[in-house]
Amino acid sequence: MQDKNIADDGNSASPNGTKSPTALNPDLVVREKKSGVRPGDTYVRIQSPHNRHFRRVGPGHFVATPEVMRPIGGVEKAYRRFKGVLIGRPLETAEEIHQRLNKVKALAVFGSDAISSCAYATEEMLVVLVVAGSSALYLSQFTALAIGVLLFIIAFSYRQTVYAYPNGGGSYIVSRENLGQIPGLVAAAALLIDYILTVSVSIVAGSAAVSSALIAAGFGPQIDALNQTLPPHFNVNVLLSLFFIALMTIGNLRGVRESGAIFAIPTYLFLGSLGVMLALGLFQSFTGTLQPAQTPPIVPAVETLSLWLILRAFSSGAVAMSGVEAVSNGVPAFERPESKNAAITLTIMAVILGSAFLGISYLASQMGLVPSEQTIISQIAQAVFGTSIFFYIFQLATMGILIVAGNTAFADFPRLSSVLARDNYMPHQFLFRGDRLAFSTGIVALASIAAFLVVLFAADVSNLIHLYAVGVFLAFTLSNTGMVIHWRKTRGPGWKRSMIINGVGAVVTLVILMIVIVTKFALGAWIVILLIPTISFLFLLIHRHYSGVANQLRIKPDQMPPETNDPIVIVPIDDVNYASLRAISFARNISPNPVVLHVAVLPDRAEKVRQKIAKHVPNAKFVVVESPYRSFVRPMLAYIDALHSQRSDAFVTIVLPEFITAHWWEGLLHNRTANRLRHTFEKHPNVAVVLVPYLLEG
Amino acid sequence: MQDKNIADDGNSASPNGTKSPTALNPDLVVREKKSGVRPGDTYVRIQSPHNRHFRRVGPGHFVATPEVMRPIGGVEKAYRRFKGVLIGRPLETAEEIHQRLNKVKALAVFGSDAISSCAYATEEMLVVLVVAGSSALYLSQFTALAIGVLLFIIAFSYRQTVYAYPNGGGSYIVSRENLGQIPGLVAAAALLIDYILTVSVSIVAGSAAVSSALIAAGFGPQIDALNQTLPPHFNVNVLLSLFFIALMTIGNLRGVRESGAIFAIPTYLFLGSLGVMLALGLFQSFTGTLQPAQTPPIVPAVETLSLWLILRAFSSGAVAMSGVEAVSNGVPAFERPESKNAAITLTIMAVILGSAFLGISYLASQMGLVPSEQTIISQIAQAVFGTSIFFYIFQLATMGILIVAGNTAFADFPRLSSVLARDNYMPHQFLFRGDRLAFSTGIVALASIAAFLVVLFAADVSNLIHLYAVGVFLAFTLSNTGMVIHWRKTRGPGWKRSMIINGVGAVVTLVILMIVIVTKFALGAWIVILLIPTISFLFLLIHRHYSGVANQLRIKPDQMPPETNDPIVIVPIDDVNYASLRAISFARNISPNPVVLHVAVLPDRAEKVRQKIAKHVPNAKFVVVESPYRSFVRPMLAYIDALHSQRSDAFVTIVLPEFITAHWWEGLLHNRTANRLRHTFEKHPNVAVVLVPYLLEG
Repeated sequence: MQDKNIADDGNSASPNGTKSPTALNPDLVVREKKSGVRPGDTYVRIQSPHNRHFRRVGPGHFVATPEVMRPIGGVEKAYRRFKGVLIGRPLETAEEIHQRLNKVKALAVFGSDAISSCAYATEEMLVVLVVAGSSALYLSQFTALAIGVLLFIIAFSYRQTVYAYPNGGGSYIVSRENLGQIPGLVAAAALLIDYILTVSVSIVAGSAAVSSALIAAGFGPQIDALNQTLPPHFNVNVLLSLFFIALMTIGNLRGVRESGAIFAIPTYLFLGSLGVMLALGLFQSFTGTLQPAQTPPIVPAVETLSLWLILRAFSSGAVAMSGVEAVSNGVPAFERPESKNAAITLTIMAVILGSAFLGISYLASQMGLVPSEQTIISQIAQAVFGTSIFFYIFQLATMGILIVAGNTAFADFPRLSSVLARDNYMPHQFLFRGDRLAFSTGIVALASIAAFLVVLFAADVSNLIHLYAVGVFLAFTLSNTGMVIHWRKTRGPGWKRSMIINGVGAVVTLVILMIVIVTKFALGAWIVILLIPTISFLFLLIHRHYSGVANQLRIKPDQMPPETNDPIVIVPIDDVNYASLRAISFARNISPNPVVLHVAVLPDRAEKVRQKIAKHVPNAKFVVVESPYRSFVRPMLAYIDALHSQRSDAFVTIVLPEFITAHWWEGLLHNRTANRLRHTFEKHPNVAVVLVPYLLEG
Repeated sequence: MQDKNIADDGNSASPNGTKSPTALNPDLVVREKKSGVRPGDTYVRIQSPHNRHFRRVGPGHFVATPEVMRPIGGVEKAYRRFKGVLIGRPLETAEEIHQRLNKVKALAVFGSDAISSCAYATEEMLVVLVVAGSSALYLSQFTALAIGVLLFIIAFSYRQTVYAYPNGGGSYIVSRENLGQIPGLVAAAALLIDYILTVSVSIVAGSAAVSSALIAAGFGPQIDALNQTLPPHFNVNVLLSLFFIALMTIGNLRGVRESGAIFAIPTYLFLGSLGVMLALGLFQSFTGTLQPAQTPPIVPAVETLSLWLILRAFSSGAVAMSGVEAVSNGVPAFERPESKNAAITLTIMAVILGSAFLGISYLASQMGLVPSEQTIISQIAQAVFGTSIFFYIFQLATMGILIVAGNTAFADFPRLSSVLARDNYMPHQFLFRGDRLAFSTGIVALASIAAFLVVLFAADVSNLIHLYAVGVFLAFTLSNTGMVIHWRKTRGPGWKRSMIINGVGAVVTLVILMIVIVTKFALGAWIVILLIPTISFLFLLIHRHYSGVANQLRIKPDQMPPETNDPIVIVPIDDVNYASLRAISFARNISPNPVVLHVAVLPDRAEKVRQKIAKHVPNAKFVVVESPYRSFVRPMLAYIDALHSQRSDAFVTIVLPEFITAHWWEGLLHNRTANRLRHTFEKHPNVAVVLVPYLLEG
């Protein structure tokens, strides 16, 4: 019945307005007698066809169905299909899964970042030491040992955090809670930078694993030739890295959540093959049968060996520590008892990382390996396995864990930026969740910046690494210092012991931070040192803006918006036609006395317009402003100002007829004055512009 | 008194709406007792300070003062000052000057285009003939003679037009009136293309005059060296041409109207020096003392001499005729008796052009000149004058008249396109007159296309010339054919004689048109042959659009816009705050029952919003639509559709609070949902979007 009525209304443009309008029904329901039930019972349902679009859950309360999202038009359909294939079907907010991880999976999810660093940390030490010639390379064993001790201290101090913050204790939260806003923001800035560098460094190192395998297989000349043809800043490693970043972006937009399985395979494949390689390698080394595939060249010294050089090697190797804090972020994802399981996982991770790093560094020293186009770890693998299938499996596993490691940043960066957005330190866009519930803005931002860095540094780990360590150790220092304050405040059982552990951690990481800053400053660390305060300052600016807005928007009981009974309404018209009469009729809804304004570029036209108005809208207030300089907007602005000044508290509404053309090219045939005016008044407070559309048929 | 009241209103946001508002006074006047005059007399004046902005000429009728145009803000001020220097102060529409020209000035204004062609027409014939070797060059005398006869016929036929159309009879008007719409549009398309080519060809030839003078002065190697360093498509002539086009664009935007003086100087300088050169040259030729500066090289034949080649040479030379129709366009600008003066001027012009062209062609033949980097006319001048000051004066004069010739197109193209726009065949933007009353759109369009052609054809006259002649002779043919019909219709005194003259003109120009098409087709004329129907078709499309619009907008007495007493008003809100309350309060002006709509991405927020609405706007119709897929726009669209279907004849108004940020960067911190929604509904007929602005203080 209802539907029939609507159809009747629809097919005849009612020629007058005298007919009393149907009462509007915002609840969209039809009440019907229920048949076959007790008389008097009614049955409530949403009007057809809107019942396809909404489910009614209460009076004036609907839930949209997937039908609402159905694409309109061919272009959108194609886009949706493409996006569907790439990202997957959209998920409802309620479909979010919160998964708990056992220790085996947790080690893969939270440990891969840290463990993967052993794939490049040794090499980065050697890159520094080789400056003093081949004979200095043996020193890497000792810097590796120092880093191992350091790792032990840091892991131990993070065990404290895991117990103290069972809901997740990243550096931002710990610093903010215990040290205050500014240290919290500094930690957050350092972490965001680190996450970006984690992606760049891991992916570039992963690509290096692929190209090392290719070099070992004898494709070196081809790679060199290909690099020659590529433009500056681009080489095979850059292309591989960009490909991996694109893959990870898509994967994360699809919502590769912390589903252990995907992460477990490459992680344990790497751990297994690494274990085999180290065992075999150490055995061969002790039996004296370990020989590098190519005899390493004797590199002459270009610098004398100095404490400075050793400290620089140490700083480079210290990046092995990056990712250690991941477990402390993820405590709530562990199976019960969360903190205990997290602490055990943390310890296992540190032991694996420490022994792998030491083992690799020892073997590299023993063989006197020198950094070259092929990575150090791949040189060791080739020496141990020969150029056999095991060598290639090991390379594949190395690439796998490095990509998984890069992927942890794809979880961490969007999560931290959404927390910062929620706390009003970052734009609220970072709170937006895409079709698959992932924080799309964060994912895309991270991928873009990381890809930019990969290209800027031509996919060279050694160049990127200089930027890396500052952020890592700044976050460590702030987090540990925060924990010291935490223990002093809470004074729970054993607080003194915990405080000492974190205190030692704080002092040690601070010392390393200093070493890193001093040794790496000129090599690129200065960029990060400038960026961290800049970003922190931006956080503060954004926070101030959002607070200001919230303040201004707060409803103060004594300051309600004025209910203007007679607003100022102006209808600028160029000519009297159906569209302008429609606009005038709309304006009459708002005000009984709209002012119809004609800005006359040609004086003789003004008279014609006046006559037409007198004929069609005899009771209108009609005003002509002649514009001798042919400008349309300026005289109108001046007139509106003049009217507005008569009642400056009133709200001015400008009602404009707007032509909607059927085809875009037809739009070019109109001056689009309406749109230009809207732009003019966009920044004018207290002036609202209403475009009353008039569809021109094609 | 009034002013004081306004000030009082301004400084306190009135806390309630109960105060009865001051009645609005759209007439902006204050009535005051006149002091010192008879009691009862009143004095009407515009309220201060608006009296600075407007002059009142009657009730509700104002004239804006220049004060209205005063720039706002530093950027606009600087822009205006820059534009002021470049273009000049804005002119009032009433300041337009209509100047009458005597025959001396008229020859300069309307004749320069035609006369200037003798600077390149001979050369273009030689460029074709030289293919058959140096020995074929003497034939140019005979093709020149044929063209001279032709010129006589065409000039004579245009004398008829001048008498028949004293209000100006361009090809478009004559063809349209006598042959119908399509021939008129074809003539218009041909003319527009010709005007563009007139600019390109004249300016390129003018630049060639400059570089020829430089080459004669010994700067040839430097020019070659400079050309080497420029990118492809650019050379010294291109740069010079672009410079001249820019200069002419600025000049014409300033409004270099047909003020004879500016045009007279270079025209008569050229005529004078050309006369001297021809007289001296012919004398030297007869006495046998005329010697070229460099002995022309003997060019071997690469093609045998054929009728085909001679016809091609003739076609190239025939461009000398371009610009002959200019006088017939400009009849109303002549002093009385207009037609007679115009006819005399036309005859003088044809005599000058004919004898100059023949003279130059004769001298070039006699000396056996061969086209080279230096133009033919400049080679003649150098032979006659030696490398003396007179030679340089002649080059300067050549450049001058060519630029003046190019400039006539800057008057013709915008004028014709404005006529076409007025007749709804071209976009109405071409009717727009800039600060200086010039048709800015046409000027800028002409300059852009001409500059594009100059670059595309690397400022080579010989390449451009192939495109030129088709349009010229097509317009001639149509115009003459139109005149034949005209005489047959009007049958005034001597109509038979006139008809024969124009008939001969039509046949001759048609034959030449055919020759031009056949000989030049493959060389580039095909472009014009494709373009003319394409442009004509576009004219028709545009005309159909504008007619359709006019039809749809016509007010039919039985189909007045409906006066909806109860429009559908929807206020989508994200939260309840001061801005959204303000939007709701605005919506209440339009409808007593606006629907407040909250699209809930997070279900728990919906409940909070409902509570706040219940508290602040207890009587609002509040609707929640939950959006499980987090889309905001789609569920809203579906809900609005559902509401609208209840009363499909009603007009839907969507009222949105919009944040206006004080700084642009702050805008990045907001999702700008309001603006996105406005774009969504832009193409939705019957839905008006009102953005109620809320200014966020910085």
